[in-house]
Amino acid sequence: MTAHVAWIPQPTAGVSAGPSSYLSAEEAQAAFRGAMRRLAGAVHLVTTRAGEELGGLTATAVCSLTAAPPRVLACINLAGRSYRMICESRVMAVNVLGAEHEEVAKRFANPKCGNPFEGSEQWTQATTGAPLLVGAQASFDCAVEQILVTSTHAIVIGDIRHISYQESGKPLLYAEGQFMSTAPLSFA
Amino acid sequence: MTAHVAWIPQPTAGVSAGPSSYLSAEEAQAAFRGAMRRLAGAVHLVTTRAGEELGGLTATAVCSLTAAPPRVLACINLAGRSYRMICESRVMAVNVLGAEHEEVAKRFANPKCGNPFEGSEQWTQATTGAPLLVGAQASFDCAVEQILVTSTHAIVIGDIRHISYQESGKPLLYAEGQFMSTAPLSFA
Repeated sequence: MTAHVAWIPQPTAGVSAGPSSYLSAEEAQAAFRGAMRRLAGAVHLVTTRAGEELGGLTATAVCSLTAAPPRVLACINLAGRSYRMICESRVMAVNVLGAEHEEVAKRFANPKCGNPFEGSEQWTQATTGAPLLVGAQASFDCAVEQILVTSTHAIVIGDIRHISYQESGKPLLYAEGQFMSTAPLSFA
Repeated sequence: MTAHVAWIPQPTAGVSAGPSSYLSAEEAQAAFRGAMRRLAGAVHLVTTRAGEELGGLTATAVCSLTAAPPRVLACINLAGRSYRMICESRVMAVNVLGAEHEEVAKRFANPKCGNPFEGSEQWTQATTGAPLLVGAQASFDCAVEQILVTSTHAIVIGDIRHISYQESGKPLLYAEGQFMSTAPLSFA
């Protein structure tokens, strides 16, 4: 097993420095991406609606924030169409995908290949009007409570207005650069 | 397969209301927790150091934020000792656990059962002084860049100063209320 180590250059750092073998910004990003491949994540469709226009993207950088009030957050690339639509409409749904949703996940990850909503899936809406994937493991329909802009991504905090979820089913995960699902630890 | 649906009461909502069958705050939290069980998550130890004192907790609400600059975020309960230490020291490490780390994950999830650092694991440090778990799938040693306080949890944004990661290995996941790992979709 090979271990990789990288010190990230931080010209404005307040903490003490590492060794002299600092990386360039490009090398630091490559190390970050390599390490992030080790982080398995559930796969979500973050969807939105602005008027009659629908938008959405595949995202793993989503997590629960608080139970009281019920809130989730999603990290959304500032450069995308979905981000602009979320800013305009202030609505967002987080759809947690199941193991059977690999195709729709790929479609929303490559929106340049056409309208990702044009598939065999069924969609519905609840409170905000954002599209909810029928059969998702869980869907959180949210009014956007706050948008925190950082360098290339915004942290979008959603106040959950409507929840739907299945009693059972296997999740879709993205890990080691591919779609996977879960298994008991005894199989690991 | 049973589907659950819940409309969350939002007295200050700006969006149009759902049906009259609104939940109490307690029922809304129960629905949120039920739905969150459907969200599989990688398991992390978020660790910190304030002077000679070490702290840490088990967390799934962690995600990557930006690659340039390399940043991660973790949602941390305001009521815990680790949060107070992170506020004091402004350092945090995110250790991504492997399938072999169930015991240490349980120990850090129940800190009242004694010092969770007193196990057979080995620890090291890199740049900030926060404890890094030797053998973690990945470790991100961070200077805290920003802390955003919400109702019960803070979003802690970490500027990554040092990365270490393994070339291979299976992740530890928490899904459906238990520890699991990954499997190819063909086994789902």
